[in-house]
Amino acid sequence: MRKQLHQDRFLYEQVAEELAGLIRKGTFRPGERIPSVRQLSRQRKISITTVLQAYMELENQGLIETRPQSGYYVQAKVSALLPEPEMSRPQPDPTLVSVRELVMMVLKDSTNPNLIQLGAAIPNTELVIPTKLNRIMASLPRQVEKEYNYYDIPPGNEPLRIQIAQRAVGLGCNLTHSDIVTTSGCLEAFTLSLRAVCQPGDTVAIESPMYFGVLQVLESLKLRALEIPTHPHDGISISALRFAIEHNSIQACLVLSNFNNPLGSCIPDENKQALVELLANHDIPLIEGDVCGELYFSGTRPAVCKAYDRKGLVLWCSSFSKDLVPGYRVGWVAPGRFRSTIEWLKYTTNVATATLPQVAIAQFLASGGYDHHLRSIRRLYASFVSQLSQAVMRYFPDGTRVTRPNGGIVLWVQLPDYVDSLVLYKQALQAGITLAPGYIFSATHQYKNFIRLNAAWWSYETDRAMKRLGEFVAEQESARVQPAA
Amino acid sequence: MRKQLHQDRFLYEQVAEELAGLIRKGTFRPGERIPSVRQLSRQRKISITTVLQAYMELENQGLIETRPQSGYYVQAKVSALLPEPEMSRPQPDPTLVSVRELVMMVLKDSTNPNLIQLGAAIPNTELVIPTKLNRIMASLPRQVEKEYNYYDIPPGNEPLRIQIAQRAVGLGCNLTHSDIVTTSGCLEAFTLSLRAVCQPGDTVAIESPMYFGVLQVLESLKLRALEIPTHPHDGISISALRFAIEHNSIQACLVLSNFNNPLGSCIPDENKQALVELLANHDIPLIEGDVCGELYFSGTRPAVCKAYDRKGLVLWCSSFSKDLVPGYRVGWVAPGRFRSTIEWLKYTTNVATATLPQVAIAQFLASGGYDHHLRSIRRLYASFVSQLSQAVMRYFPDGTRVTRPNGGIVLWVQLPDYVDSLVLYKQALQAGITLAPGYIFSATHQYKNFIRLNAAWWSYETDRAMKRLGEFVAEQESARVQPAA
Repeated sequence: MRKQLHQDRFLYEQVAEELAGLIRKGTFRPGERIPSVRQLSRQRKISITTVLQAYMELENQGLIETRPQSGYYVQAKVSALLPEPEMSRPQPDPTLVSVRELVMMVLKDSTNPNLIQLGAAIPNTELVIPTKLNRIMASLPRQVEKEYNYYDIPPGNEPLRIQIAQRAVGLGCNLTHSDIVTTSGCLEAFTLSLRAVCQPGDTVAIESPMYFGVLQVLESLKLRALEIPTHPHDGISISALRFAIEHNSIQACLVLSNFNNPLGSCIPDENKQALVELLANHDIPLIEGDVCGELYFSGTRPAVCKAYDRKGLVLWCSSFSKDLVPGYRVGWVAPGRFRSTIEWLKYTTNVATATLPQVAIAQFLASGGYDHHLRSIRRLYASFVSQLSQAVMRYFPDGTRVTRPNGGIVLWVQLPDYVDSLVLYKQALQAGITLAPGYIFSATHQYKNFIRLNAAWWSYETDRAMKRLGEFVAEQESARVQPAA
Repeated sequence: MRKQLHQDRFLYEQVAEELAGLIRKGTFRPGERIPSVRQLSRQRKISITTVLQAYMELENQGLIETRPQSGYYVQAKVSALLPEPEMSRPQPDPTLVSVRELVMMVLKDSTNPNLIQLGAAIPNTELVIPTKLNRIMASLPRQVEKEYNYYDIPPGNEPLRIQIAQRAVGLGCNLTHSDIVTTSGCLEAFTLSLRAVCQPGDTVAIESPMYFGVLQVLESLKLRALEIPTHPHDGISISALRFAIEHNSIQACLVLSNFNNPLGSCIPDENKQALVELLANHDIPLIEGDVCGELYFSGTRPAVCKAYDRKGLVLWCSSFSKDLVPGYRVGWVAPGRFRSTIEWLKYTTNVATATLPQVAIAQFLASGGYDHHLRSIRRLYASFVSQLSQAVMRYFPDGTRVTRPNGGIVLWVQLPDYVDSLVLYKQALQAGITLAPGYIFSATHQYKNFIRLNAAWWSYETDRAMKRLGEFVAEQESARVQPAA
């Protein structure tokens, strides 16, 4: 009997301790109801008495309170006593942080509303989401038709694929909706394409610098990156690529053809054709990223490599994440001869892309609102990129270089040699600013003194942030010239 | 000059031919506007004259028409002349069709509204989507707050993770929202989990038969499946698994713990604990699928293996696809010690899961509507499964066996030995019925005379379809017993 009592005591204490932990960690928040005595008793297969004892213990500790006829609730004042821990911010020590961890830090910075956002290349969702798109999305669930809640099995939503194919025709691509597979954003299109055309251990020729997401995909698929010299205006060097192909075994090539991230380069039409032909001659698939193709600041929409594809070797990947809405996660790939493999891989990845976002975008495009929207955001981003560029000139020291992109939302800044972009990232974070350090844009970490800046969230505050960054760069210079104590 | 003229003629004919092809294939549909002369001229870098000639040619062919002040449109009557081709339906010849192709066919059948749906295990989206969820989804885009259109970077939407963690606590799991990563459905949770714990070439122990999606994921990741004997009531045999572990190098184990697809088996609590302990003793991760856990027909919610996890080796994978809404593509994994790898792999797969569907489900769960909804669909599916089971008894010949699941939405039917489920699938398709042939539920194709039937879309028509299936089975029997001519 005594032993029983002792075990019961132990059990209720244990239950109370677990629940207290859950309350502290925020699984149950101030004011929320916790499971009823009966529920917990049934779920845990413990006696009602034990649960009651545990709840009394929690009441004594001031963590929960009873409300008559209603149940047990987390004390509202707990929030005052136990504030939630802030997002952890481990010191990004250059000697300890892996590139993978650094990438995940830069990404998570983008969700921190207290930071000035110069880091992840995320479009300005406060300014550029069309009201009409929100209206369409809101109208869809009211039309309670089964198909809106159903799986959009690969190749994905047909009305959306028709819209994409129609626009592709305007770009000189002879595509029908059957040639398109929708994806959950462009990065998924890249992942599926690389899995379709490569095996682990294969080598992929890429532009350098390259968007860190692509490098992380390559690493996750155990593919090797061969970085090809890339011009800040004209993109990948065709002659360097030819040399690389002749001296290496290359199984695929991946370029961001229009307004490369981070360079802003745009491969001229004749180079696009030469690139497609060079690769076709060697039967090497070309994975083409084009997410910023619609975001040109002057002239006309640049062409896509896909328009020159005669052998079905170009996998044209894009999305609506940069020019319409990132959170919907809707992109596509026109996979040429790899279509059935891509459809199968899409199924094995996640069955299908969410239906409602695809339907909403299809209706928005069909309504004709997209081109009007694009015209207005092109002007906006052209202005933001220009203002950010002027801030670089204004606040950064002599010896700084900056790209002059004709589209997209980012600038690639080469700082003086003495600058370590990881140190700068760390200094900036402490001042409430996030940026993308150069290291993460190369598989060989060669852009130590480069940073990428996102212009899409430009505001008066950004200008002040740029001034602070300029001061941090100056500090790194003075730290360098001062003799060691 | 003559040569120039010749080239121009050739070019306009080529342009006209391309456009005609796009109209026939449905990229531009009857009544839709095609690009303006100016647009096409600019995009293709060809002269206005050439485009005009091409458009006149298309007018002459009766494919397009001019509307003054407006542009060129696809002739409305084209639809009468050229009906769209129907979905292709190649003959599923048993000697030629690969399992991969067969799986994709069964999936695509599910989008064909003319078929009686006994194939893919898709919940009944006509009957079971709660109005309240639709209402919440409709309300969200009107609250034009930037976060609803923003990326929900891994680990994913926090309010949703809190709801999932709260429910997990009720299942005896000591989890907080930080222990959950949201995914685009459960299959993505499986893919991420397998990629996190295995390398290509590794061996994964699985229940047999196994949901074909898992087998396809294993194949796509170049993993080997080791099929373990599985009881239709109690799931994986612990003793057989122990033997397998002692005689093989096994890097992971994957089970569908509650209402296995296709078996309907539910691992008893004591076996769950024994399974977790056996694997923990050998440091083998357990990937646990639990999508039907809430769909029990009697008693209480079965436990999850995760509740017995002491070493962080259980990756608990589930989704809202079977019990709430498939088209939203929202699932999760509680990855234990593999959390940071899973978050990174999720980023490299598709950056994030769509935001709005996650927010809508989180609000629906927080509103308390989920449990009410579950109670009603449990009754519905219990009734449908029972009716389908009775139809099997009524129409199928002696020697047929059928599972008696206590949850989920499918039945697993063992037909007499002489039945070839692929022949039956083919016969059924011709009669407007789709089902899942046994072959696709095993890596070694050992379920020739088995079929899986989805009960979720039960109706009067289903009963008639079952009668037809019974007749086809009888035909296979008489074909067998008749002497060769």
